[in-house]
Amino acid sequence: MQKGNLLFAQSGGPTAVINASAAGVIAEAQKSKAYDKILCAHFGMDGILKEDFYDVTALTKKQLNLLAETPASAFGSCRFKLPDLKTDATVYEKLLAIFEKHNISTFIYNGGNDSMDTCHKVADYFRTIDFDCKVVGVPKTVDNDLVGTHHCPGFGSAAKFVATNMEEIALDTAVYEKGRITICEVMGRDAGWLTASSLVATHRGNGPDLIYLPEKPFDTKKFFDKAMEVYNSKKRCLVALSEGIRDEKGNYIGAVGTKDSFNHTQLGGVAAYLADCITQKFGIKTRAIEFSLPTRAAGHIAALADQKDALLCGNNAVKAAVAGKTGVMVTLRRKDGKTVCESLDLAKIANEVKSVPDEYITDDGSNVSEKFLDYVLPLIEGEVHHDYKCGIPVYFDTDDLKKA
Amino acid sequence: MQKGNLLFAQSGGPTAVINASAAGVIAEAQKSKAYDKILCAHFGMDGILKEDFYDVTALTKKQLNLLAETPASAFGSCRFKLPDLKTDATVYEKLLAIFEKHNISTFIYNGGNDSMDTCHKVADYFRTIDFDCKVVGVPKTVDNDLVGTHHCPGFGSAAKFVATNMEEIALDTAVYEKGRITICEVMGRDAGWLTASSLVATHRGNGPDLIYLPEKPFDTKKFFDKAMEVYNSKKRCLVALSEGIRDEKGNYIGAVGTKDSFNHTQLGGVAAYLADCITQKFGIKTRAIEFSLPTRAAGHIAALADQKDALLCGNNAVKAAVAGKTGVMVTLRRKDGKTVCESLDLAKIANEVKSVPDEYITDDGSNVSEKFLDYVLPLIEGEVHHDYKCGIPVYFDTDDLKKA
Repeated sequence: MQKGNLLFAQSGGPTAVINASAAGVIAEAQKSKAYDKILCAHFGMDGILKEDFYDVTALTKKQLNLLAETPASAFGSCRFKLPDLKTDATVYEKLLAIFEKHNISTFIYNGGNDSMDTCHKVADYFRTIDFDCKVVGVPKTVDNDLVGTHHCPGFGSAAKFVATNMEEIALDTAVYEKGRITICEVMGRDAGWLTASSLVATHRGNGPDLIYLPEKPFDTKKFFDKAMEVYNSKKRCLVALSEGIRDEKGNYIGAVGTKDSFNHTQLGGVAAYLADCITQKFGIKTRAIEFSLPTRAAGHIAALADQKDALLCGNNAVKAAVAGKTGVMVTLRRKDGKTVCESLDLAKIANEVKSVPDEYITDDGSNVSEKFLDYVLPLIEGEVHHDYKCGIPVYFDTDDLKKA
Repeated sequence: MQKGNLLFAQSGGPTAVINASAAGVIAEAQKSKAYDKILCAHFGMDGILKEDFYDVTALTKKQLNLLAETPASAFGSCRFKLPDLKTDATVYEKLLAIFEKHNISTFIYNGGNDSMDTCHKVADYFRTIDFDCKVVGVPKTVDNDLVGTHHCPGFGSAAKFVATNMEEIALDTAVYEKGRITICEVMGRDAGWLTASSLVATHRGNGPDLIYLPEKPFDTKKFFDKAMEVYNSKKRCLVALSEGIRDEKGNYIGAVGTKDSFNHTQLGGVAAYLADCITQKFGIKTRAIEFSLPTRAAGHIAALADQKDALLCGNNAVKAAVAGKTGVMVTLRRKDGKTVCESLDLAKIANEVKSVPDEYITDDGSNVSEKFLDYVLPLIEGEVHHDYKCGIPVYFDTDDLKKA
């Protein structure tokens, strides 16, 4: 009897543990014996539409372990947006034909907000036309802004990166008797979870003096006052702020990306802009540091707790599908000091943003409250140990895979 | 009988292993039993002139181990420049009085080029006036630009940071079918050793396509051609370049730090500038990443080989002093696949810059040659294992020290 095949795809920006979810899906699918073949799309939905698949049915335990330790999307990703079925049914029909041709009985899609929207639409379409394929979403985002889940795989490792770098920058910027104002810009345009995580460094004794999240309107004047107050008392000031901070009217601070009079794009982010303003205005030394892409890419400082959660989500996506569930995303919940996996209807998730709640932000918006530590500490616990060769981590090599 | 005291001080920008040299000095001084007290200046030469000392005579092995794993200058640093004796003898006389008062029989100064110049001047002065205090320099710089030594403690860890991040950025930027041109800016204004280290990532399979060092004049037009050639063939291009690249006339590319018509400082470094130029000129997506300060601060990815070298230099500085040497800097040499410690007259070191030699740079200046791997690989080997608490590394706490 033919059991059908499982198709897995990665989508959106990479994280340090997105491949751990892939490993979790593949391992559980192997264990379940519910599928003939396990396929992974090359370049996400784009690869599906080109029938460009890896056959990962026979990946060994050793290969899966290495995959789970490897940052970035090993099978390739995409920024695919599925149109509404009512507007354009063509892609849906093409997908159906491909799924039928390749006998796909389960489709697992691993991504963030947009990908969960795609997942939702595909699941709905299959239900509407009565096509028996289970569709399950696996959450992924460093920003931690997906609703319906206590936290999101990918966040813990990025948060550990932020907290560790903040600690090390705090040590570095404290070495001179007279220091400067150092402003660190952290990823997260709409939600401040990553920036907030720098509180861990402060909690441990070496961290930022001020922390600004995009959830509260940013008052540049008040910020200058606050930073100068710290500087005047400590002879230095370390600031963490989110790339997405906006003023009361919702305009991004520093108007990054605008053109100057020569039609050149304003270079540098909000940290560089504010640091420059302070130097101009107060004549003191400043430095801007943009944490940038390594925040999500840094597998070498991935959190073990995050890797485990990502694996768990991969496992449970397959379990949900095998149990007959469809149109759901697996979710994480904290229960008795542990992370447990559940699932939630995709209709309740797509296109919502989970912001840092007010209770985690101090009243004047210039810091994060201690309460946040209870939330974040369990998520950044533990280290993933890598093998190193030639001094750098050994990661999974996609060239070792075979195409279907 | 009073044996005299040892005074140690840190100077210049921190590295991930400068404290390992401190631990090496303290441990060897304890072992030698040649000193009554071991003092560390707070904030380098500035602290000496204020008689602001820590007494580290009784630091335990456990404390020294933790110190050796801790990035940034635990005792504080300075940017002190000693005037010429002929111009101004005041500081020299003040130093002498302080050294006499505190019975300093050995002075060990840990720093880069400027610090070795200071060290040299102090040693010369003491010799001239027949003051019996041994003065020994310990090298330190992430830039690896000190002459007279095969390599410099601090470089290996920063190089490991660069190579690891390059590998991870290469993985991250390869996930989409159609990628962009990503330009990474690496520390090193005059010497390209750190930027060159990104070759390790390429050697291992995921690294930059193009590498530009400050040792060769940078031709922006040729760079655009080269980058677009790679982009057109691979649909992506990853570039590593040194913050110090200059054109044929010696002008920094992008004229970072100049003012625009509104008297605002041009924000962002050379990577941001070149990425913007490419987007404007060719209409393709780009990204600039500045590795910045974490390059030297990232203790969590320090190289074990580098830590050992730093310790060794600390040990050998004390041994040299005890053996009666003065006016020297300890140096490192590779011999039979191992690093050995020697020493060299400070007169031969001060104020010279060690550039990356031509043999390590490809003829067209757009990459680093494989030969460089023989040089760099032994220096970035091994990992320093840290304890973690609350998800971030446990580092030495200077608050636990007592002042002399």
